[in-house]
Amino acid sequence: MRRDIYTADHEAFRELVRDFVTREVAPFYEEWERAGRMPRRIFEQLGDIGVMGLAIPEEHGGAGTDDYRYNAILQEETSRALVTLGTVRTQLDVILPYFLAYANKEQRERWFPALAAGRLLTAIAMTEPGTGSDLAGIRTTAVRDGDDYVLNGAKTFITGGLLADLVIVVARTATDPDNRRAGLTLLVVEDGMPGFTKGRELDKIGIRVQDTVELAFDDVRVPVANRLGEEGEAFSYLGRNLPQERMTVAVGSVAQSRAALGTTLAYARDRKVFGSVLASFQNTKFELAAVSTEVEAAQAMLDRAIVELVEGRLSGADAARVKLFCTEVQARCVDRCLQLFGGYGYIREYPIARLYADARITRIYAGTSEVMKVIIAKSLNL
Amino acid sequence: MRRDIYTADHEAFRELVRDFVTREVAPFYEEWERAGRMPRRIFEQLGDIGVMGLAIPEEHGGAGTDDYRYNAILQEETSRALVTLGTVRTQLDVILPYFLAYANKEQRERWFPALAAGRLLTAIAMTEPGTGSDLAGIRTTAVRDGDDYVLNGAKTFITGGLLADLVIVVARTATDPDNRRAGLTLLVVEDGMPGFTKGRELDKIGIRVQDTVELAFDDVRVPVANRLGEEGEAFSYLGRNLPQERMTVAVGSVAQSRAALGTTLAYARDRKVFGSVLASFQNTKFELAAVSTEVEAAQAMLDRAIVELVEGRLSGADAARVKLFCTEVQARCVDRCLQLFGGYGYIREYPIARLYADARITRIYAGTSEVMKVIIAKSLNL
Amino acid sequence: MRRDIYTADHEAFRELVRDFVTREVAPFYEEWERAGRMPRRIFEQLGDIGVMGLAIPEEHGGAGTDDYRYNAILQEETSRALVTLGTVRTQLDVILPYFLAYANKEQRERWFPALAAGRLLTAIAMTEPGTGSDLAGIRTTAVRDGDDYVLNGAKTFITGGLLADLVIVVARTATDPDNRRAGLTLLVVEDGMPGFTKGRELDKIGIRVQDTVELAFDDVRVPVANRLGEEGEAFSYLGRNLPQERMTVAVGSVAQSRAALGTTLAYARDRKVFGSVLASFQNTKFELAAVSTEVEAAQAMLDRAIVELVEGRLSGADAARVKLFCTEVQARCVDRCLQLFGGYGYIREYPIARLYADARITRIYAGTSEVMKVIIAKSLNL
Amino acid sequence: MRRDIYTADHEAFRELVRDFVTREVAPFYEEWERAGRMPRRIFEQLGDIGVMGLAIPEEHGGAGTDDYRYNAILQEETSRALVTLGTVRTQLDVILPYFLAYANKEQRERWFPALAAGRLLTAIAMTEPGTGSDLAGIRTTAVRDGDDYVLNGAKTFITGGLLADLVIVVARTATDPDNRRAGLTLLVVEDGMPGFTKGRELDKIGIRVQDTVELAFDDVRVPVANRLGEEGEAFSYLGRNLPQERMTVAVGSVAQSRAALGTTLAYARDRKVFGSVLASFQNTKFELAAVSTEVEAAQAMLDRAIVELVEGRLSGADAARVKLFCTEVQARCVDRCLQLFGGYGYIREYPIARLYADARITRIYAGTSEVMKVIIAKSLNL
Repeated sequence: MRRDIYTADHEAFRELVRDFVTREVAPFYEEWERAGRMPRRIFEQLGDIGVMGLAIPEEHGGAGTDDYRYNAILQEETSRALVTLGTVRTQLDVILPYFLAYANKEQRERWFPALAAGRLLTAIAMTEPGTGSDLAGIRTTAVRDGDDYVLNGAKTFITGGLLADLVIVVARTATDPDNRRAGLTLLVVEDGMPGFTKGRELDKIGIRVQDTVELAFDDVRVPVANRLGEEGEAFSYLGRNLPQERMTVAVGSVAQSRAALGTTLAYARDRKVFGSVLASFQNTKFELAAVSTEVEAAQAMLDRAIVELVEGRLSGADAARVKLFCTEVQARCVDRCLQLFGGYGYIREYPIARLYADARITRIYAGTSEVMKVIIAKSLNL
Repeated sequence: MRRDIYTADHEAFRELVRDFVTREVAPFYEEWERAGRMPRRIFEQLGDIGVMGLAIPEEHGGAGTDDYRYNAILQEETSRALVTLGTVRTQLDVILPYFLAYANKEQRERWFPALAAGRLLTAIAMTEPGTGSDLAGIRTTAVRDGDDYVLNGAKTFITGGLLADLVIVVARTATDPDNRRAGLTLLVVEDGMPGFTKGRELDKIGIRVQDTVELAFDDVRVPVANRLGEEGEAFSYLGRNLPQERMTVAVGSVAQSRAALGTTLAYARDRKVFGSVLASFQNTKFELAAVSTEVEAAQAMLDRAIVELVEGRLSGADAARVKLFCTEVQARCVDRCLQLFGGYGYIREYPIARLYADARITRIYAGTSEVMKVIIAKSLNL
Repeated sequence: MRRDIYTADHEAFRELVRDFVTREVAPFYEEWERAGRMPRRIFEQLGDIGVMGLAIPEEHGGAGTDDYRYNAILQEETSRALVTLGTVRTQLDVILPYFLAYANKEQRERWFPALAAGRLLTAIAMTEPGTGSDLAGIRTTAVRDGDDYVLNGAKTFITGGLLADLVIVVARTATDPDNRRAGLTLLVVEDGMPGFTKGRELDKIGIRVQDTVELAFDDVRVPVANRLGEEGEAFSYLGRNLPQERMTVAVGSVAQSRAALGTTLAYARDRKVFGSVLASFQNTKFELAAVSTEVEAAQAMLDRAIVELVEGRLSGADAARVKLFCTEVQARCVDRCLQLFGGYGYIREYPIARLYADARITRIYAGTSEVMKVIIAKSLNL
Repeated sequence: MRRDIYTADHEAFRELVRDFVTREVAPFYEEWERAGRMPRRIFEQLGDIGVMGLAIPEEHGGAGTDDYRYNAILQEETSRALVTLGTVRTQLDVILPYFLAYANKEQRERWFPALAAGRLLTAIAMTEPGTGSDLAGIRTTAVRDGDDYVLNGAKTFITGGLLADLVIVVARTATDPDNRRAGLTLLVVEDGMPGFTKGRELDKIGIRVQDTVELAFDDVRVPVANRLGEEGEAFSYLGRNLPQERMTVAVGSVAQSRAALGTTLAYARDRKVFGSVLASFQNTKFELAAVSTEVEAAQAMLDRAIVELVEGRLSGADAARVKLFCTEVQARCVDRCLQLFGGYGYIREYPIARLYADARITRIYAGTSEVMKVIIAKSLNL
């Protein structure tokens, strides 16, 4: 069905991105995969063409366009080319909103121009060994000492941590036995601060183009000037951005499901098995018809949610439904598509293999499917 | 998520229907189920409040409102009350479009006022024993003889045939060995015509409130004046209305899935098992969260398709996707809901049991899921 | 794969049953379905050929063959003929074990000959309105008064209750606030005892050949001589027979899945659609291959469990696994088979429709799938 | 349920293997994974303890025990330790049978002692770029020239090809336009033969401990003395070993599903989330109960098939059913288990991640699920 959420401006942006991806990403993607990360220069290039600063106010070098649909297009176009932009997505969709919402004037002046230029790379450090999705269980501490916080603790599963110049760390500045959610604060740790070490890279099933690391903080002195927002308010800050964070996963899931369908259609029309074109078998037709159907359902649901997100009225429960559904569609669709490739589907030089390996994380990160169900059930008064 | 396809006029109509269903349908529904049909008077009552004639031109006693969203509301509101309107739905969504599109001036004057008044009940007879969804295989013949066609053959699975005053019969008026689809014609057979007999009622798993019968035609003389549209054009006529017919099934599937969720939520919040409220078990929460998610996905997809249908641009392949998806969602959701009722779910006095029994037909009628996949695959150039 | 659990004696019994079913059951089955029950005479006929008394000691007119494999064959052969023996199964597999295990000498003399002859029909009344699978929540009371118990309460979902001459009622004879499971007793209520009324029949989705009723007890005086086993021990009695009760459901599920496959294979090889035999479509082949595979898996698991049951070492958790798996296989297989029938699959004169309607109860009765999972999880130390 | 297919001798072998795996495999496994292959010495060590020569006649240095159950135990015990033996499995289960069945006296003397000692590593080269499971489409040619065959062509997806000393190559020695299956011959190519090159390693989603390579043959002169069996008979040879080859995959699938369950149970009992042990959540209990149930079903089916294989009466269709079912169970179970690990499930240092990545190939290799369905459908006369 015809999608109707984009304007001519969005489509112009789409052309820009498509062109960029074709020239600057697709040819190098396998190399980045092998390296386990993207080069810094890609951030700068994206800064040059205005992508990194889209949502940053014009006064700080950005375009001042706070419209999530541009972010969606970025994922659609990379997926279309069977690549991802790894940590760029995290920076724009997940991390930048915290800076935009909570940075004070001084911080905006200090960081925004470089963020818009793609010269400041970022990460956010929430998860700790042993806590998973349970933010209230965070044990990293930040103790106020004069104009600094003294930060101690460890974080894990940190996307983009390796290259990050700035890491937003969620730390506990106070403990309230009656309210586990109170007392969390956001601190911006800078690469190179004494006591801040980046640990080993985690060897993941997929999403290899983005590094995932452990971080350790040993008496790191973080100036109070690096605190993002108010002390003790981090839990509510994090909650406020969760719908968009989850939408980001959903957008990627649908775009990648569609990409899986596309590459499989091409393969099925071309490949011969047992003397006939793969596409001519009824099983192939029915499998791809089923995949196409689920992709369209997911797209319809997602598009409605994007509109609600842009209009500022997407509920947490609906974001959870969309993430839950779109990531499950992705799991089913990519698996069915891969199967049609036979042995080639298992070889990473075929994009379907990468799509499969990448897909397994989406039902887990930004809140597992189980956490989504908890949220949805609450909204049903269960 | 907020649905946005209805205007204030639609919502006013919804109120009207809701009120009618509460007063005139719900209290009698179990009785109709036992009887295996609805009484004729309900058609007349619906005629009185303007429902039967919604799409019929004003000059013939209708409202002249050719807007499918009113039809959708009718199903939404009956489902909400855990009932259906059986053959009313077939008449308005499936059969009336043929009259509206192909009746000539004389026929319009002859039939439309009574159709609008709910005093002419209709059926459409396509399927024959042994043909299923394969319209091109129709063997009922109509041979021109003066001002009549002489009709011979048998039809089966005819919804509403028992009460029908007019039956649109798809008959073969010519045979083209090179084109199985050519030579089919629509004839309106009237109850009581000599040689026209209504056979036994079929005992179905569900949808008991609507009768399903076999019809036999033994040298029935049907005046040429009762031919709907041109001779030999029926195949293309039938094809043109198929998207709406399939949407009608999808609308019902989503509405009934939502109804299943609603009645199960109420039950789960009320019912105690092993000393605790059913709703308090994590399995209950997760099952209903999953159901709620699928219902929302189906609704989003459906709503987009309704808009396209109303705007006259819904493709056959997209209608097939929507039917395929929404009926599968219904199957999964109603089954999961029923399970939470335990033994009560299997007893027909609980609406969930009726919803379950009714649901099994939707993946079959108006084109099976397999036929949908064939259509979708073609649209993918497979 | 070849099944290896039956001996020549079992196969001889299979012949006997097959012959009986062909002559005495299959020709009348639709009639019984419409009537909502089987005639009493079928019990007597089964008594005459030795089926009803298989497990009853020879001294009381039975064959003294306590070998569950005969019970399994009974279900296999009825399923093969696309029928069931409704309450016969309940009597032999579920109820008789209580009489055999707990009847005292006087009771054995009083009841066993007539049970063996098929002249005493039985039911067991556990479930109460509002309790479901939670036996410990039983509220029907039996108060000792001289040589009688005075019984008060209501039961529901009682299979075969309408025709039953004897009903084993689980009643509470004492209340222990610390142990909800203590204080339950089995009393044999006889048809005609003052205060014992059989309520309305429940209208079920399927299994129509066996009646399901509500029972009410209003100051029914049940002689102590009618108590089965010791006072207060019913909970453990019921628990001990649960594995066999669940196996009975599993045996039926597999046999009926196999029957569904058989009737669908026959249909697919015969039926033409779109000019080709249904069996020639790859989708048909793949669907039936998948069904066949699941049926074989279920059969293998079931057969191993039958051997363990016969050897007296089947654990409750393994019985739960077998019931859970076999009933889920049945649900999936029967649904897939029905789909291949198209519209005919929805018409009850086609056995596949009855198999479908009957199948929905097996994931519920004798302990729901959820209860099975609770049991299995316990065995995993979760 | 209790497994009953193993004798005391098998259990003694199990102890031997378990001990070996604990000492010689598990501690080094991650290292091998990173290296992308196992070291040659492991083959020799397995030769020393008698594993490599189990099925080789005693006169050639083996144990002369042609009992597939030993092979099954090998996989069970490695899976139990959350490792695999990669190409050892291929050598023993897939390749050795060809040597055993078709090697002539001279070949037996030449190769068997070193095979038994683990000093000759092997591979089999069937698949070609573009043919997949379609053996009849093989285009590699071997043209007789004196006492040699001159071999030309390319093979891909060759497990263990990198280390192989001997590669059984399926080549076309004749072309029969009426019979695509005729004219195939097995030739044993030795590492180092001029014109034989081992191409690049394929980068796979999982099964990293076994290399998968492309092989090229450019005018390789293979002595006729290296022909295995008769010229032109390869198609039937290959067909004869397929049931065992497929059983091998099934054995691995079940063993690895069980391993996944085991490691997840341990994790769930240990791990805390949201302040409670993961195992205490009903969702965890129900998921693991479901996994446990499917594993038991698969094991029961598999064990029956192992017995039939050992007795030499396992049909190709039943082997196909077992492979289809067990690999699907594996896919479902490993996916569900991984999900319970949350983010850790995606990190390859957790064995569940490796089990997941490894699992995706089993529905593909040794004949895809689709090929299995074709075989099964044929056995159903479809």
